Amino acid sequence: VSFTMYYTLLSRTISGYYYYTVFTPQSEATMHLPARIGDYTDFYSSIHHATNVGIMFRSKENALMPNWKYLPVGYHGRASSVVVSTTPIKRPYGQTLPVDGAAPVFGPCRLMDFELEMAFFVGGPATKLGQPVNIAEAQDHIFGFVLMNDWSARDIQKWEYVPLGPFTAKNLGTTISPWVVTTLALEPFKVDNYPQNPAPFEYLTHTDKFNFDIDLEVAILPNNSSAATTVCRSNYKYLYWTAKQQLTHHTITGCNLNPGDLMASGTISGETSDSFGSLLELSWKGTKPIKLNGGAERKFLQDGDTVIMKAYCESDTHRVGFGSCVGKLLPAN
Amino acid sequence: VSFTMYYTLLSRTISGYYYYTVFTPQSEATMHLPARIGDYTDFYSSIHHATNVGIMFRSKENALMPNWKYLPVGYHGRASSVVVSTTPIKRPYGQTLPVDGAAPVFGPCRLMDFELEMAFFVGGPATKLGQPVNIAEAQDHIFGFVLMNDWSARDIQKWEYVPLGPFTAKNLGTTISPWVVTTLALEPFKVDNYPQNPAPFEYLTHTDKFNFDIDLEVAILPNNSSAATTVCRSNYKYLYWTAKQQLTHHTITGCNLNPGDLMASGTISGETSDSFGSLLELSWKGTKPIKLNGGAERKFLQDGDTVIMKAYCESDTHRVGFGSCVGKLLPAN
Repeated sequence: VSFTMYYTLLSRTISGYYYYTVFTPQSEATMHLPARIGDYTDFYSSIHHATNVGIMFRSKENALMPNWKYLPVGYHGRASSVVVSTTPIKRPYGQTLPVDGAAPVFGPCRLMDFELEMAFFVGGPATKLGQPVNIAEAQDHIFGFVLMNDWSARDIQKWEYVPLGPFTAKNLGTTISPWVVTTLALEPFKVDNYPQNPAPFEYLTHTDKFNFDIDLEVAILPNNSSAATTVCRSNYKYLYWTAKQQLTHHTITGCNLNPGDLMASGTISGETSDSFGSLLELSWKGTKPIKLNGGAERKFLQDGDTVIMKAYCESDTHRVGFGSCVGKLLPAN
Repeated sequence: VSFTMYYTLLSRTISGYYYYTVFTPQSEATMHLPARIGDYTDFYSSIHHATNVGIMFRSKENALMPNWKYLPVGYHGRASSVVVSTTPIKRPYGQTLPVDGAAPVFGPCRLMDFELEMAFFVGGPATKLGQPVNIAEAQDHIFGFVLMNDWSARDIQKWEYVPLGPFTAKNLGTTISPWVVTTLALEPFKVDNYPQNPAPFEYLTHTDKFNFDIDLEVAILPNNSSAATTVCRSNYKYLYWTAKQQLTHHTITGCNLNPGDLMASGTISGETSDSFGSLLELSWKGTKPIKLNGGAERKFLQDGDTVIMKAYCESDTHRVGFGSCVGKLLPAN
């Protein structure tokens, strides 16, 4: 709906009459994916997340790969398994290597994790193969944003990902919030871009702000519990690469875009240990279990856990919510 | 068309009458993609290709990554940039690292390559998220095969691919042949599967043959030349992992499939140096230029080169052709 229509409808809800005739309460609605997703891309644009993972799997000195500050690292993900909030996710089977150097084993994933991400839907007309999108025109193709849980099977990922990247560890399901908050609606929440050093190549350079102050949080609700525990508070503004830079880089070799394509941020971790956007980081590879209300602990997700992500922007005059991004982890078959 | 109808039509063409009323000559037809491709996956299933690349980028001792013989390594590719044979491909721009340890540079790709692959289209009903396809049912979802050129920007790939795999180096265009040869039509050309050692996990084990004797060849036609040079002769039968194993592994974590999904083999290299399926291998990273008719040489592709791939099966009683998979490399803008 247009802004005018939106505010008209909103003011009429005060009377109560239009509320019941025009709107359906969310609890009575069936949510669907907001678009037919042609292609789904996942970036890796949080410097804190990439650094944390790099320290854990390599060393502090070699945490960031040499390309990381020159280009928004990303990979193509699986579009078919992107699902809308509240869709249950099953603990996957797969191959893992519990003992380095020994033979791999097959069985249910043991290190199930969430990844706190946001993603944007591509809008506007389809672009043509061989025609990169100039950074000055990138915003024309960024329709709006959703919240995302990029469920990750850490033990499967660790064994499978060399040399071509994550594959089955990520295609078991990716949950997004059910409606798109337009880029226009986020205008009041623009903040400074993250400082970039070295300066990016010219094709990735834009001087206008395209970063957003969006509060993010993740809670875990154990099975048969009524008390969720917030395990992470982060913010979209921690991203090193902007969505414009992500989109332009994606097309630099000539890749064509279609409306409905989805591009995700990568896990959004902040600077402090309570702002890390995955259990891998929050529990530091399982070495520091996190405490839940009621006394339980988590290194990674347990069967029956519901992961609840929320995102919102707030100022004196505006509040924009993304709805929730929820999924319950079912046991393996 | 069904087999019966096919042979009926074929016999009637002898009379000439039906030929002109029922068929349109290929030269007068506009070719289109044979399906709307929901998701495109690229495997890496040729042991000779993976070994060659491993030797070049690591060492002979560490050529194959430890996971390679346990699972069909693969990655999600870009569906939007899959195009039908004869679509021109533009030399892409991107970041590369000409001098190790120095700063990267931005400019046109200098190491453009082809990759000789085949791919199968997924058919049958869509599968559900969380429900892996059993290896015994995999064939029900393998509708048929096409020939593929997975154009690759080698220098861009080398800089960008750590740690999440190939991204923009591959999304500049992927060419497939224009019609699908059904799995049924390939029955007469079944050959033994490639010997697998160690034995694969049970979920990947099938004892029936699902390998095919499909002759493959690649020719390069330079700009303004009338003489193409065949630079490679290979065969689909060299693949280590079968299409059934690829498909089942793809779904083991619960990834859902849709009809129209495309799954590619990875570069199909044979044992001998004239059967390698990419210029990277044929010229051994540019150290051994290959000779073209007329005296020209190639380490990698030059602007104006047309890459022509062909695939066919032949026995005493049957011949099945895949049509050609052709693309001309246009200069960067």
